[in-house]
Amino acid sequence: MKNVRYARCVKCGKLYEATPNLTNCSCGGILDIIYDYDYIKANLTKEKLARRSDNSMWRYRELLPVEEDTPAPPLRVGWSPLYEAGALADRLGIRTLYVKDDGINPTASLKDRASSMAVAKAMEAGAKVIACSSTGNAASSLAGNAAAAGLNTYIFVPGRAPRGKVAQLMTFGATVISVQGSYEETFELSKQAIEKWGWYNRNAAINPYLSEGKKTVGLEIMEQLNWAVPDYIAISVGDGCTIAGLWKGLKDLYAIGWIDRLPRLISAQAEGCCPINRAIAEGEDWRPMEENTLADSIAVGVPRNADKALMAIRESGGLVVNVSDGEIMAAQKLLGRTCGVFGEPAGVTGAAGLKKLCEQGKIPADASVVSVVTGNGLKDVANAIAACGEPISIPGEMDLLLRAFADHGVVVGS
Amino acid sequence: MKNVRYARCVKCGKLYEATPNLTNCSCGGILDIIYDYDYIKANLTKEKLARRSDNSMWRYRELLPVEEDTPAPPLRVGWSPLYEAGALADRLGIRTLYVKDDGINPTASLKDRASSMAVAKAMEAGAKVIACSSTGNAASSLAGNAAAAGLNTYIFVPGRAPRGKVAQLMTFGATVISVQGSYEETFELSKQAIEKWGWYNRNAAINPYLSEGKKTVGLEIMEQLNWAVPDYIAISVGDGCTIAGLWKGLKDLYAIGWIDRLPRLISAQAEGCCPINRAIAEGEDWRPMEENTLADSIAVGVPRNADKALMAIRESGGLVVNVSDGEIMAAQKLLGRTCGVFGEPAGVTGAAGLKKLCEQGKIPADASVVSVVTGNGLKDVANAIAACGEPISIPGEMDLLLRAFADHGVVVGS
Repeated sequence: MKNVRYARCVKCGKLYEATPNLTNCSCGGILDIIYDYDYIKANLTKEKLARRSDNSMWRYRELLPVEEDTPAPPLRVGWSPLYEAGALADRLGIRTLYVKDDGINPTASLKDRASSMAVAKAMEAGAKVIACSSTGNAASSLAGNAAAAGLNTYIFVPGRAPRGKVAQLMTFGATVISVQGSYEETFELSKQAIEKWGWYNRNAAINPYLSEGKKTVGLEIMEQLNWAVPDYIAISVGDGCTIAGLWKGLKDLYAIGWIDRLPRLISAQAEGCCPINRAIAEGEDWRPMEENTLADSIAVGVPRNADKALMAIRESGGLVVNVSDGEIMAAQKLLGRTCGVFGEPAGVTGAAGLKKLCEQGKIPADASVVSVVTGNGLKDVANAIAACGEPISIPGEMDLLLRAFADHGVVVGS
Repeated sequence: MKNVRYARCVKCGKLYEATPNLTNCSCGGILDIIYDYDYIKANLTKEKLARRSDNSMWRYRELLPVEEDTPAPPLRVGWSPLYEAGALADRLGIRTLYVKDDGINPTASLKDRASSMAVAKAMEAGAKVIACSSTGNAASSLAGNAAAAGLNTYIFVPGRAPRGKVAQLMTFGATVISVQGSYEETFELSKQAIEKWGWYNRNAAINPYLSEGKKTVGLEIMEQLNWAVPDYIAISVGDGCTIAGLWKGLKDLYAIGWIDRLPRLISAQAEGCCPINRAIAEGEDWRPMEENTLADSIAVGVPRNADKALMAIRESGGLVVNVSDGEIMAAQKLLGRTCGVFGEPAGVTGAAGLKKLCEQGKIPADASVVSVVTGNGLKDVANAIAACGEPISIPGEMDLLLRAFADHGVVVGS
């Protein structure tokens, strides 16, 4: 790869050649892909990019760790919409708010960005099988992206994974192992199985290329804002890989001189599972926590990419905020009603955190903010209905409709 | 509107001025929007279109029935991916197959195209409230697109609507009336309520602009194929509006000389509810049927747009094919496993019909075909899991994994 120099351990600094099947450093640390920014600057300009009709994450090929001739995997991932959310900004009392809806990806979550990269690298490695453990979204996105590319998948999910994600996995033809236990136990079993059978590893905190896929959400936000840097970007945090990837994308753009400053990250976690935010708040290293939240995708008690996540939040001068399940579900309704965006619980946790920070007066009124919705609410229908209630149910008669409107206090407008 | 001449009744030919709140003809017939194709040809070229960066259905503004200054509604609808599906083509024994995944729309179905148009026309009409009846997808798409635009919605769905669609409706803040009865009873109640309260009407067979939104799926297919006309386009049929819209888009392109022939339509319905296909097969007018299929979106016993649908199928020299629920669910799995596309039952009925016609030898082996997936499988998770089965469920231990693989006959590859 002409644009990549090597991989470097974030813990001990050891360097590795950037082969397609890289995993962790021998010290256990996570690797980071280091680019040749001079090469990238010489080969990509904003003008060149603007002329590209490829509306997927692969429009940023010069900034991605793949060989020049590696084909983009089949599913069209990325280039999700960035909506200007004026009504929601007014509700939160801030000047400018954008909502990035990554739930419109092919398997309906941001994780498609990492899975598309995983498939590209597995193809480079000549692998026929990919495996991962996941709270659900990485799983279904890997299953879908791999199926489209003709690769087989072995996927480990915790038993709590919502039905929508299970339905995706089974439809995409993955071999799915539902582990009766926590995400940590799920991860451990996947690790052993991957070692035993030598499958290509799509565990995001092991394979250093995956956060390079996720970083495209940051690249897109900046291109969609015409390179005008927002003050804050709010996102939910579980394993830590997504916020680390987002930060990497922003730093890449800063390194090639396309943006002149960096935004502050807002790391939103669930109160019932916030080891990364606790570490920031206490200025200590992270410690494991229970996984007590309905936001299943970020219920990660032992975050596998805490190192990169903590570095990203600290480097950015970021804010951390923990929200209750009730606050998460309130944010889901608020986004639905003001933006027409339906996010899954973990998907709207960034918005819930932003709302809380606004209420606490921690975000200046003249701030510009981007809130990333990381997954589609259709993945977890049961919680959405529990939060919003059931429709009015009546037989098809006009007098019953009138009575039901009266009973439910519906004042009919026209 | 400079590009629109008038609306014309498909039944009696009566002409109407194209005001924003048009409904049916006084004779009960459905109206069709008639364009000034000379004006369009003078104002839009393929080259001009190719240079547009708007990757939504609104890139075709000159071909859409809106005022020049009507803003596109907020949600980014359309420009869904068209995948070349080589593996599936091989399985079906045809030369070239493309799959158009309209499940990636903002509310996860093709109906967003009609709802985006409904919102645009409601804004032109100065309406604050929109209403519709729907089997579910038109409902949730209207609720989402209207919420993003700040409009209120009253929505009537049959009690059988799957939970995913109900969750969307409630999250988007619609006032939802779940009618304990058939789609026909639902439609009738909505009609009475719309008359009583004067809401803007988004019933697709009443409001003639909606199929003009849906036609963008046809415009996109042709642009994505670089104007090379396929031999067939397969799509599921319920109310009849979608296939009629698709056909309208293709005929528009033919009228302005951008394509030199028209494809044949494949109208796929469920065996348990196929009034339109029965009419074609028998060469008679359509008659009501029961609604006996799990493909809820196309379980329409009294199709409201049968006139336009029958005309479209006949004009195109189309094929009709009815599939069982089992064949629908088999097609869902097949699409998932070969294309990484997860469609809802009605969404994959076009593919199920295509598969059946291929097996019957009715599609030449050298044919090129497009199959439209009209909605995301996440909308109806229960049926997908019922069709695909449950994952392997074990505690997180390696010896249990080995035993489970043996028990389930999993032969592990690498």
